[in-house]
Amino acid sequence: MITDREKAAFEAGIKLGALYHQFVGTPISRETADSVETAIEQAVSLQPCVTDVRVRLNREMMVSNRFGYSELAGRMLDAEVTTRVGTAVCRARLHLQDDYPMMEIVETHETARDTDHR
Amino acid sequence: MITDREKAAFEAGIKLGALYHQFVGTPISRETADSVETAIEQAVSLQPCVTDVRVRLNREMMVSNRFGYSELAGRMLDAEVTTRVGTAVCRARLHLQDDYPMMEIVETHETARDTDHR
Amino acid sequence: MITDREKAAFEAGIKLGALYHQFVGTPISRETADSVETAIEQAVSLQPCVTDVRVRLNREMMVSNRFGYSELAGRMLDAEVTTRVGTAVCRARLHLQDDYPMMEIVETHETARDTDHR
Amino acid sequence: MITDREKAAFEAGIKLGALYHQFVGTPISRETADSVETAIEQAVSLQPCVTDVRVRLNREMMVSNRFGYSELAGRMLDAEVTTRVGTAVCRARLHLQDDYPMMEIVETHETARDTDHR
Repeated sequence: MITDREKAAFEAGIKLGALYHQFVGTPISRETADSVETAIEQAVSLQPCVTDVRVRLNREMMVSNRFGYSELAGRMLDAEVTTRVGTAVCRARLHLQDDYPMMEIVETHETARDTDHR
Repeated sequence: MITDREKAAFEAGIKLGALYHQFVGTPISRETADSVETAIEQAVSLQPCVTDVRVRLNREMMVSNRFGYSELAGRMLDAEVTTRVGTAVCRARLHLQDDYPMMEIVETHETARDTDHR
Repeated sequence: MITDREKAAFEAGIKLGALYHQFVGTPISRETADSVETAIEQAVSLQPCVTDVRVRLNREMMVSNRFGYSELAGRMLDAEVTTRVGTAVCRARLHLQDDYPMMEIVETHETARDTDHR
Repeated sequence: MITDREKAAFEAGIKLGALYHQFVGTPISRETADSVETAIEQAVSLQPCVTDVRVRLNREMMVSNRFGYSELAGRMLDAEVTTRVGTAVCRARLHLQDDYPMMEIVETHETARDTDHR
């Protein structure tokens, strides 16, 4: 028996793992960070069960190399994604914790309304 | 209150989302598929909470383009990953289902022994 | 002796290979294609020697899966990048040719003005 | 008029840009580095015009995070690829230079034998 909360947590994990490995390595600068944030948020919001997503990239870490740009690193990513399966909701986060880009569940809860977001 | 089963499901989701978006697009052929399977399995097995992983790539789908190779597509991926958090275990799968590379939990359960695999 | 034209061609190749393998696999739809085009163009324009870049994604090919989205495939990409090294200019293209996402040089030439775009 | 040397240089650039952006971000450790080197070499060798490829990953830089693994960074990559178009040969390299993962042509030359490796 797999609960909807477990499924929502699973779906949230998929989204964070996916966005990390899709976009890490992208050439980036403080001037172009907006466009990458938007592209990531829109890519995540298309995927199953996602009800909310917010991506913020740490501009402070975008130190220019000799050619004037930087590269998206996992450490720069601060992302929060909310998923829903049945009435179960999971909110999860990717953020820098002791120099490791940690992914973790913030909370899981039940909502009154059963809306299938698949 | 977040349960260990939810955490294990979350971790399994991360791994499947990550491997998919890291490796899709890799030039591949039936002759080199072994090396990509090994590289993916080893990459996944390094990550937190993973106790088992198996990746199989569908060689039938590796139809050569005019230059004699193919490209790893999500549809070619059949992967199963097992994660453990505390005594909770999650087994999850990525496989082709009605032409969609579906990721889903196969089962979650509790084990007797509490082993921290982080 | 390596000519500037060869260097410009080399740089153009880097950019096309890079954008292809960075972004293929991104969840996408006709509604979000704009944001991905912008993100790719900005990422490429940051890199050494690039003087111009244009990326167009084929919306016709973005057929929705059962969850209402598609995935960026190499076949959807139409991109043109111009690089300059010394007075040598290279214009190269990635586009679908007989069902293969072909990358090729469109032309190389010399300009009057020597501007180092590195 | 585009020369075969320019084409060979273009093809070499494609391969280096591609491998970089395909594999950066892969979870890795000193124990699994072999499998990633093999997977990258095989992926590159499948592509058009490639006659030789060698990939070496810097194990010194693979410092373990708290979960006991590292992540493939561009700085770890040392790769050399040789391409041929007609009788023109290009040898190019990706290696760390002043803390930047530099891609550059090592040499271009003509061979006696005209062998089409496409």
